[in-house]
Amino acid sequence: MQPKQAFIIAEQFGTPVYVYGEELLKKAAREALSFKAPFGLTVLYAMKANPNRRILEIFQQMGIQIDASSEYEVLRCLHYGIPGEQILLTTQELPRDLAALIQKGVQFNACSLHQLEAYGKQFPGTALSIRINPGEGSGFDARVNVGGKESSFGIWHEHIPQALELIEKYELTIKRLHTHIGSGTNPEVWARVAEFSLSFLEYFPHATILNLGGGFKVARIPSEKDADMNIISKKVNKALLDFAEKTGRKMRLEIEPGTFLVANAGVILSRIQDKTSTGINGYTFLKLDTGMTEIIRPSYYGSQHTMQVIQREPTEDTEEVLVVGHCCESADLLTPSPDHGDEVFPRLLPKAQIGDLFLIEGCGAYCSSMSTANYNSFPRTAEVMIRESGELELIRRRETLEKVLELEE
Amino acid sequence: MQPKQAFIIAEQFGTPVYVYGEELLKKAAREALSFKAPFGLTVLYAMKANPNRRILEIFQQMGIQIDASSEYEVLRCLHYGIPGEQILLTTQELPRDLAALIQKGVQFNACSLHQLEAYGKQFPGTALSIRINPGEGSGFDARVNVGGKESSFGIWHEHIPQALELIEKYELTIKRLHTHIGSGTNPEVWARVAEFSLSFLEYFPHATILNLGGGFKVARIPSEKDADMNIISKKVNKALLDFAEKTGRKMRLEIEPGTFLVANAGVILSRIQDKTSTGINGYTFLKLDTGMTEIIRPSYYGSQHTMQVIQREPTEDTEEVLVVGHCCESADLLTPSPDHGDEVFPRLLPKAQIGDLFLIEGCGAYCSSMSTANYNSFPRTAEVMIRESGELELIRRRETLEKVLELEE
Repeated sequence: MQPKQAFIIAEQFGTPVYVYGEELLKKAAREALSFKAPFGLTVLYAMKANPNRRILEIFQQMGIQIDASSEYEVLRCLHYGIPGEQILLTTQELPRDLAALIQKGVQFNACSLHQLEAYGKQFPGTALSIRINPGEGSGFDARVNVGGKESSFGIWHEHIPQALELIEKYELTIKRLHTHIGSGTNPEVWARVAEFSLSFLEYFPHATILNLGGGFKVARIPSEKDADMNIISKKVNKALLDFAEKTGRKMRLEIEPGTFLVANAGVILSRIQDKTSTGINGYTFLKLDTGMTEIIRPSYYGSQHTMQVIQREPTEDTEEVLVVGHCCESADLLTPSPDHGDEVFPRLLPKAQIGDLFLIEGCGAYCSSMSTANYNSFPRTAEVMIRESGELELIRRRETLEKVLELEE
Repeated sequence: MQPKQAFIIAEQFGTPVYVYGEELLKKAAREALSFKAPFGLTVLYAMKANPNRRILEIFQQMGIQIDASSEYEVLRCLHYGIPGEQILLTTQELPRDLAALIQKGVQFNACSLHQLEAYGKQFPGTALSIRINPGEGSGFDARVNVGGKESSFGIWHEHIPQALELIEKYELTIKRLHTHIGSGTNPEVWARVAEFSLSFLEYFPHATILNLGGGFKVARIPSEKDADMNIISKKVNKALLDFAEKTGRKMRLEIEPGTFLVANAGVILSRIQDKTSTGINGYTFLKLDTGMTEIIRPSYYGSQHTMQVIQREPTEDTEEVLVVGHCCESADLLTPSPDHGDEVFPRLLPKAQIGDLFLIEGCGAYCSSMSTANYNSFPRTAEVMIRESGELELIRRRETLEKVLELEE
């Protein structure tokens, strides 16, 4: 974002404010849609990353479907006019009214034996998906979380026999096999995970779709590495071709990016509202008018985000600073050590003054959707979209205190 | 909570639901109010711990005042009829309209040189408070976070001369000295911190109030230790008496408990909505209908909470389980290792079945107020108070999805 635009947005919408770029969203979407798949591809957006209506609409118009994580995410999409047929529900918690969703065409992915049985009882003789936790016995790269015994997601691979019993009992058809691939970057690992997932298809002879759920690693700072979609997709493509040659089964591929589609299309635009120090042997602190109320990833995960000072009076000076949020909470730190979220890690930034603007980048995913909003009674912040035309559109209003208190009246 | 009552509450209000006990809140309040202080005591409730209207009202009726952390917390109290004079604002972020608050009688605690100057410019010749970061040069117990150079809270003690310049320039009077004491348990440490804080009073000859901000450690599980208010208060009492004898200054004492007043007066009542396992070498998982949307402390801080299974069909059997939340987020774990929030730590609990109720205890503080509410589009949950009469009162309604989406319309 150019300084001039930052000043305009701050003036027009106030700070803090989330700002997304339509062009960047579309660019990421096009890249995801270009993932190679020999027998067809469906891209589903993991909407938990950022469920804003406008973002959902942009992706839907480009042919991207929805990976929903809860019944409420499904209801949100239906409310916004997204057809049930374009929504795949993969959830830890069975909907309170599953029938209402199924009747609207929503696709259901059974993630536990209990879910499989509950579905079977209500909809015997129909087709659905199944999510398998493939375990960790395959020597994958440890950084790639494909499930494993510490993960509660999906039906444990050793329990496939029990799943098959339920499938037979309720005369169900498994049309889609869903496994989970972590946010890895190594194409070799992707290839192995794809092959391993394909190996489970022998139990599900009617399945025509392979969903390699999970995300694609997105670099938010220079030292991190993006998943190279191009190389990965070639590897997965080859695995699908080999599988077809061996078995005759031409599997349609589904991928479910969340972070990849939105992370680098959004920033938090904030203002430096105070600057303090703890002396010559201490630290200099920039205090923002945002914090864990809008972005909890740094203190929760030790996540690193690039940051920019937008000076009102440009200088060449730099200084090492700690950047902290506005909550009365010692954990509300935006510059943690990458390895230890609770240790500080100073940044070298242009020298800032109180009143300068401050950008936190890579905030499109898991910021607005996953933060301790309303802590210290701060109202939820606004969200703005920079349209391709350059026009600024308010896509979520700033909350008022009255609205925060409404449920207590 | 007795099983019978848990079933009644679940039936009447649904799950998940926060449940608070008025009797327990009042008991904690009485204990805080009995803190010894030779020259007068004011207890302020750190409302960020739990800002529910009913809780504020109960404490206010008992003579407890308010420690507010943001202008929005102040506005919330004013909206609920709490007089400005009973509110002390100690904030990282200067209010957008400080004058409006000061005119309502709100007491202001300058927490940085910038805040001190901003106040002085607007209200020269008046009285206010000052918060000092006393540093870490005093050999305190490392577990007691009294500030130190990594903390951005308060005016660094070496900058007192600059503060005195501003005080002189704007003819301000410092009536209250505020320092911060962590949630420690060691009475000797409390005594030393009190003495150290008193030593700063030489710079503020007109101060008549010493505010030992910060909390009192509350044990949530048996292996943790409560701060012994009785022993601590005797130590602090002696420090104030010694100071009076030495200087002739009879300081009124203020304390600002948050956790101490509410933590053990609240629980989350939830339901076990699924139960899965990752095989004989893996784990058994209880999946709740709550999670980081209502309580993020375990995964954020590695916090330990006692838990109870409330069986519909009581048995003597027990089993080791991991307890997980309902979000599609691998971090949504309620049984982390105390030292590493991202490592699992199984619990031995009564054997549970899907549909049983589940209590998470010690949830009165920093749960409802500080969680990733609305993540995965889950609406905010309801809050219920068990009145002293035994009557159940809905003190916050359950949010609807429509309300979650309102800001996007």
